[in-house]
Amino acid sequence: MNKNLPVYFSKQDGDLWLTEEEREDLKISYRIKEILFEGQSEFQHVMVLDSYSFGRMLVLDGIVQTTSIDGYIYNEMISHVPLCIHPEPKKILIIGGGDCGAAKEVCKYAVVDQVDMVEIDKLVVEVCQHHLPEVSGPLADSRVQFIYDDGVNFAENKENEYDVVIVDSSDPIGPAKSLFEKSFYQSIHKSLKADGLMVCQSQSPIFHQEVMQQTYQRIGELFHFVKLYTAVVPTYPGGLWSFTVGSKNYINPDPARLKDKETHYVNKDIIERCFSLPQFMIEQYPPFENN
Amino acid sequence: MNKNLPVYFSKQDGDLWLTEEEREDLKISYRIKEILFEGQSEFQHVMVLDSYSFGRMLVLDGIVQTTSIDGYIYNEMISHVPLCIHPEPKKILIIGGGDCGAAKEVCKYAVVDQVDMVEIDKLVVEVCQHHLPEVSGPLADSRVQFIYDDGVNFAENKENEYDVVIVDSSDPIGPAKSLFEKSFYQSIHKSLKADGLMVCQSQSPIFHQEVMQQTYQRIGELFHFVKLYTAVVPTYPGGLWSFTVGSKNYINPDPARLKDKETHYVNKDIIERCFSLPQFMIEQYPPFENN
Repeated sequence: MNKNLPVYFSKQDGDLWLTEEEREDLKISYRIKEILFEGQSEFQHVMVLDSYSFGRMLVLDGIVQTTSIDGYIYNEMISHVPLCIHPEPKKILIIGGGDCGAAKEVCKYAVVDQVDMVEIDKLVVEVCQHHLPEVSGPLADSRVQFIYDDGVNFAENKENEYDVVIVDSSDPIGPAKSLFEKSFYQSIHKSLKADGLMVCQSQSPIFHQEVMQQTYQRIGELFHFVKLYTAVVPTYPGGLWSFTVGSKNYINPDPARLKDKETHYVNKDIIERCFSLPQFMIEQYPPFENN
Repeated sequence: MNKNLPVYFSKQDGDLWLTEEEREDLKISYRIKEILFEGQSEFQHVMVLDSYSFGRMLVLDGIVQTTSIDGYIYNEMISHVPLCIHPEPKKILIIGGGDCGAAKEVCKYAVVDQVDMVEIDKLVVEVCQHHLPEVSGPLADSRVQFIYDDGVNFAENKENEYDVVIVDSSDPIGPAKSLFEKSFYQSIHKSLKADGLMVCQSQSPIFHQEVMQQTYQRIGELFHFVKLYTAVVPTYPGGLWSFTVGSKNYINPDPARLKDKETHYVNKDIIERCFSLPQFMIEQYPPFENN
């Protein structure tokens, strides 16, 4: 096996280690029990690994995306917050989200009629459903349509159709780069109904201030409301992670909508409290004039 | 220099890397610009390093303790929360906290008359004051008494003396191990006035559930109130960090007490909402009967 080991791995004293090399100055290494899947799709290198610290992990191009011990935090936060803001979220578009965790959370709302899940890489969906059931769940809900397409192309051709759009992208490198462009947010805006709203993951307030500022600015220029919220994602660098909401009409969450939803991180307090930002973020992201 | 490099370092392609080896299954490596201080005290190995990702870092026995880019988060959260709970915190005891950051924050309150700072390792205080001014500040406040002693011994001999005790310890290994024992919490309880309260850092809700449960249980059995709050500390594993308050009388913070304090993370919203726990923590830490 050593001979064919992907470049992301090293062996030390007989142990297998995955080292994330994306950052020039900070490296995180995970001791690995087993490689459950390894393959190359048309778009990226895809693995599911069983690790000692985080259980099973989805790894794309050598970077950990989600894990069985903390994946629920990110997926609950990117889904329940927008669904508690919109009073009647019937038609949902998820762009990215190949681990199916966001779709799983969205399906907890009876009000939802249709979920279009547009993921560029079919292999990611397949391996997550097979190897990462803790994250993706047994997603056999007939309301979910799987569409294997480029999210940018898909959104461009939609108009006045969705109540909520969730942009669940990986980092702004590789296949997800175009999901951080202004023209993409314009397409999302057009694809939303007159009272629709979007949410996207917008990276770390500590390490990716440039991407965050740019996302906040671009969404703020297009939408009537722009608002940031945060969550802790233990496997992402810095722990603190940001999400940006752009909304045409509604902006305040109604935590009562969480009623009877089974969750592991989110609760009524968290839905309200996640918009309370640390002081340095309040100073860096002043409200837009139109808000 | 290579010859005398401490064991915590490696060289790769001419670059110097510090790798934290405390965890068996997860390693974090920091690219280092410069070793600003390196020495062995009676108690531990002490370094201040200049890193590319986190700026200057205090490193004890090879483990990063605080950094110039995020040290304020931890220090503000362990100080302002108890000082907003106690209505008249005049006499404060800080155990540990050699980086002087907690003492710096406490001194922002005019109501405070005296701060006894009991740190076992004088070398840590000296190197932080010299090399880590962003964290320790120019701490020349006459209300602060530096006492270089074992926190356990010091607390044992105090009775009915303090309004607030802050236990700002490192991990429960090495010199800080005894700061997690039940007998130590008993001494703290005795050292507090009849309406006094304590706070301690109680490790990660994700990675150190055993220590957290034990701390919660031990403090809950001694004090009328026990309550957890959380903050994000980017340089600590898992990002999410917990603090445990034990109080004889007061438990609700009054964020108005923050007025005019210059802070970078804490604000009125954060002081109130830090007690809103993720759902999995609410389930793991039910309220004590006496609360």
